[in-house]
Amino acid sequence: MESKAILILGAGRSSSALITYLLQRAPQQAWHITVGDISLAQATERLAEFTVGKAIEFNIDNTEESRKIIRAHHVVVSLLPAHLHPKAASICLDEGKHFLTASYVSDEMKQLDKAAKKSNLLFLNECGLDPGIDHMSGMQLIDRIKSQGGVLTSFESFTGGLIAPDTDPENPWRYKFTWNPRNVVMAGQGTAKFLQEGQYKFIPYQRIFTQTTPVVVPGLGNYDGYANRDSLKYLETYGLHGIKTMVRGTLRNKGFCSSWNILVQLGCCDDTYPMEGVDSMSHRDFLNAFLAYHPSHSVEEKVCKAFNLPLGGEDITRLRWSGFFSDELIGMRQGTPAQLLEHILNKQWKLKQGDKDLIVMWHRFRFLKEGVQKEVQAHFFAQGESEINTAMAKTVGLPLGIATKLLLQGKLKSRGVIIPVLKEFYDPILTELKSLGVEFVESEITKP
Amino acid sequence: MESKAILILGAGRSSSALITYLLQRAPQQAWHITVGDISLAQATERLAEFTVGKAIEFNIDNTEESRKIIRAHHVVVSLLPAHLHPKAASICLDEGKHFLTASYVSDEMKQLDKAAKKSNLLFLNECGLDPGIDHMSGMQLIDRIKSQGGVLTSFESFTGGLIAPDTDPENPWRYKFTWNPRNVVMAGQGTAKFLQEGQYKFIPYQRIFTQTTPVVVPGLGNYDGYANRDSLKYLETYGLHGIKTMVRGTLRNKGFCSSWNILVQLGCCDDTYPMEGVDSMSHRDFLNAFLAYHPSHSVEEKVCKAFNLPLGGEDITRLRWSGFFSDELIGMRQGTPAQLLEHILNKQWKLKQGDKDLIVMWHRFRFLKEGVQKEVQAHFFAQGESEINTAMAKTVGLPLGIATKLLLQGKLKSRGVIIPVLKEFYDPILTELKSLGVEFVESEITKP
Repeated sequence: MESKAILILGAGRSSSALITYLLQRAPQQAWHITVGDISLAQATERLAEFTVGKAIEFNIDNTEESRKIIRAHHVVVSLLPAHLHPKAASICLDEGKHFLTASYVSDEMKQLDKAAKKSNLLFLNECGLDPGIDHMSGMQLIDRIKSQGGVLTSFESFTGGLIAPDTDPENPWRYKFTWNPRNVVMAGQGTAKFLQEGQYKFIPYQRIFTQTTPVVVPGLGNYDGYANRDSLKYLETYGLHGIKTMVRGTLRNKGFCSSWNILVQLGCCDDTYPMEGVDSMSHRDFLNAFLAYHPSHSVEEKVCKAFNLPLGGEDITRLRWSGFFSDELIGMRQGTPAQLLEHILNKQWKLKQGDKDLIVMWHRFRFLKEGVQKEVQAHFFAQGESEINTAMAKTVGLPLGIATKLLLQGKLKSRGVIIPVLKEFYDPILTELKSLGVEFVESEITKP
Repeated sequence: MESKAILILGAGRSSSALITYLLQRAPQQAWHITVGDISLAQATERLAEFTVGKAIEFNIDNTEESRKIIRAHHVVVSLLPAHLHPKAASICLDEGKHFLTASYVSDEMKQLDKAAKKSNLLFLNECGLDPGIDHMSGMQLIDRIKSQGGVLTSFESFTGGLIAPDTDPENPWRYKFTWNPRNVVMAGQGTAKFLQEGQYKFIPYQRIFTQTTPVVVPGLGNYDGYANRDSLKYLETYGLHGIKTMVRGTLRNKGFCSSWNILVQLGCCDDTYPMEGVDSMSHRDFLNAFLAYHPSHSVEEKVCKAFNLPLGGEDITRLRWSGFFSDELIGMRQGTPAQLLEHILNKQWKLKQGDKDLIVMWHRFRFLKEGVQKEVQAHFFAQGESEINTAMAKTVGLPLGIATKLLLQGKLKSRGVIIPVLKEFYDPILTELKSLGVEFVESEITKP
């Protein structure tokens, strides 16, 4: 068997399962694996428990060095921050290497499609959890419904990265940082676009956390779903033109969106300007900077007045639990509101030893079959093993790992900039995920 | 007397008073005046009633032609859209011409300061109404208070471009477009920054129209003021470091901000993406695209539910008056929400024959003098003569016209990229404005 070299880029929060999956199979598959991170220590730590695999420092800004490293491998799997992917992919294109990532396809990435196809390269994107498993499980269902003569009328798909019921039971947000905290702070910026009952809907950032949909996942619980980015662009990808409802979204536990909306409304998630007086700013001062002046009202009272809330209500409880009314110094010298907010939240929302996360994905598709309206729901959930081996890392990393294996085994024929909506991806990847514990539960009902 | 050539750029909405002021004085001052606009017809129309002055087509994107035209003049006065000013100023720098405008100093403009000084050129910005007359009247007051031993503790300055009481009496917004409609639709985007009672305040777009201040202008009425852009940057310009309150803002009639906020919250002012299905979209469909789906509620009911409003209330009355619940087609083929909103609003908010606008400017400064807390208020108002000779055109154009005259008479010595906060600007300009009917009324009180 010919030996193959795999370069994994990024050894952060979501990398543990991907690295483990590939390293465990490396000896048998004759793979040589390198893990590169901007921090050599981080990469080294991720490899500590393995006897194979090599840790290196990798800095994409150092173009020539990056090029040399990539040249020495057959395929690059990247968990780098999303904005770095077009640069990494460009180098892969120059060097004739395949490129796999869990990030959304950016406009820059899209432009590499023709050239990648021409060079017989696979640039696979959106092959993680969400986007990733949602695409694959959704397309498998869509193709099955279509093949049985059904006509889709509604597609709804929601995913959430939450915490397990026994983690942090006193945490009233029922949430912690299980992926890049900056992405959590910036979530929802831009305009959500979707289709509902034949009507285009455009929900701006300032309304997205107020306009939530209740989602009941059988056996798990009641959640709030908010619409995620541009669902319209998947009409074509999924082959769903003419469908009446098409919405992709994010799940949060009840109450989260209402409280998070206060931070959004106040402008705490703004990343466009540096605040004044940060070095002497307390958590309480931070919140107060966004509230109308009043000569005698407390910060708590001002929040309640601004949002018409009761002082003893759940939103104030959540803000208090996160320390927003505390006189503790933030402990940064400078920063945008979003940077300061992330720093404050991280004091309570960082996973601590023993914490376990929880991934929930839920689909509801409606379709007409022989004149009868039908509905199928499917969901899966996964609980993390520890604060390192999270369900997030597992569900983001395994689809990428499996796709890498399939590619190196010559089982993937698609080329160019694509996402895993084709049978050659979703069938083998979902089958293997099932064997690894990621299994959908499905139920179908016929509407009277 | 040496003859001088003046180039006026932009013959749009706000240009009538500037053109009239300079043309009336042209024969006596031996000025040759050219008016350039992207539309030759527009420039020609503005000159129709004069026997002097020349109309030309001027397109800043045609760099070489623009350069040739500018080269033939001594000074350029620009009412072009603000984003074109750095380019126009760059050409002026190359060609050694003075440049005057009413627009805010942009970062690009600031970078020309050194070179302009070196070439002995005046690049005067923010010399219109607001910014402009507010700077000049404010600085005259500040300098007077300081020279009399007072220490400023609070600076508040608000300006509004409204409509006269007898114009459109049925219009529940008490507002029409009296300057660039696009700027009205985009107003407030970004974060307002100011200082209040020693606290920095940062108010994001989504809160700016809710966090208003009541402003009572003696003899005129009760208004709502909202904070305007970055007031903090004028702390240094005005020499007010250490002051406790510093806020510049915009005045609107009561109720405007509350109703406009609905459009802001819904995302109707978003200019970042093209909407779907525009060619068959009615006004009602437009509003509905931003509202949560409901199987039976009307658009009116959905607005009321989203913002907790009564169906018969004033906000709904304003939206209805502007046609947002009408089945009339918008009449555009494509557009961003902001472009469509501007088009819908323009159907009712365009000035019609006989309409008169109203400018209101109000300052309130507090200061300590010999241990006693004092307050001075100053305001002026100006009413338009017609839908063409608006108070807006007058108060934006006259300061620019007067500054141009002073410059050509050799009475302005300052050079570089500046704004009119120095005595050599504000004394002669305010004196002449007074003779032209723009006069402040002032009152001082001593706090018990």
